[in-house]
Amino acid sequence: MEEVPGSLGTSASLALRLGQTIFSSASLLFMCLDVQFYSYTSFCYLVTIMGLVIPWSMTLVLVDAYSVCVKSLPREQKILLIVVIGDLVLSFLTLAAACSTASVTDLLIHAARYCPAKLCSRYQLSAAMAFLSWSLSLASSLFNLWLLPSL
Amino acid sequence: MEEVPGSLGTSASLALRLGQTIFSSASLLFMCLDVQFYSYTSFCYLVTIMGLVIPWSMTLVLVDAYSVCVKSLPREQKILLIVVIGDLVLSFLTLAAACSTASVTDLLIHAARYCPAKLCSRYQLSAAMAFLSWSLSLASSLFNLWLLPSL
Repeated sequence: MEEVPGSLGTSASLALRLGQTIFSSASLLFMCLDVQFYSYTSFCYLVTIMGLVIPWSMTLVLVDAYSVCVKSLPREQKILLIVVIGDLVLSFLTLAAACSTASVTDLLIHAARYCPAKLCSRYQLSAAMAFLSWSLSLASSLFNLWLLPSL
Repeated sequence: MEEVPGSLGTSASLALRLGQTIFSSASLLFMCLDVQFYSYTSFCYLVTIMGLVIPWSMTLVLVDAYSVCVKSLPREQKILLIVVIGDLVLSFLTLAAACSTASVTDLLIHAARYCPAKLCSRYQLSAAMAFLSWSLSLASSLFNLWLLPSL
């Protein structure tokens, strides 16, 4: 069986999953350091989605680390299908959360002008981290999708 | 060759493309009926993206209508690849624009409270139309992606 770099069970996939975990945790951390986030719907949405993405990524970090260590690749079609669908759905949700956060932060900075500079730069960092997490999640999903028809 | 319903050149695809054109035009129309949209970054972004989605969908409506009429399916791998990539990119951009618009409108309604009711309901309708256009665009993209490995 051909080996697609970045698909489930490879070391590239482990790196992608670790990146997702780190970026989504950073996004959640930047958003939650101050407790003002619950005044805005989109910030609450970001926190919710990150609360879904972090356990998902951590589970797959464990799966990848296990299969890198024991050198066996879990290549069942059903498992791969679940991973692909989960990744796609979560990447769309992450993108939505990142865009909402970015646009609301932008509005707070430029239009409303009632955002303390320190707070708003944290929101911006949180949105940026969410975008990075989205791109890695999409990459994982596409690599696994590429492998799917060959199974 | 198997026929995937919804892939390029079928009548289901024509219906999807028509839906995309109608919803994205409606979204643009609701946003542009008043000229206040350029005060907000995310509304300008929505207008830009809809200005990309509408010509793309209309071109593919023409391609689909042609191939439905003459009963020949354009099944070259390169063309299909371009359509899939274009659809995926545009669907991500549309989702981003829809989320930005929705979250900014929500903020304007709930937090800032300086949005006239008539204007804000137009923004909401515009965001809803953009979401519908995104879902149809994603469906087209997935149908074509499903066909791609068999070519």
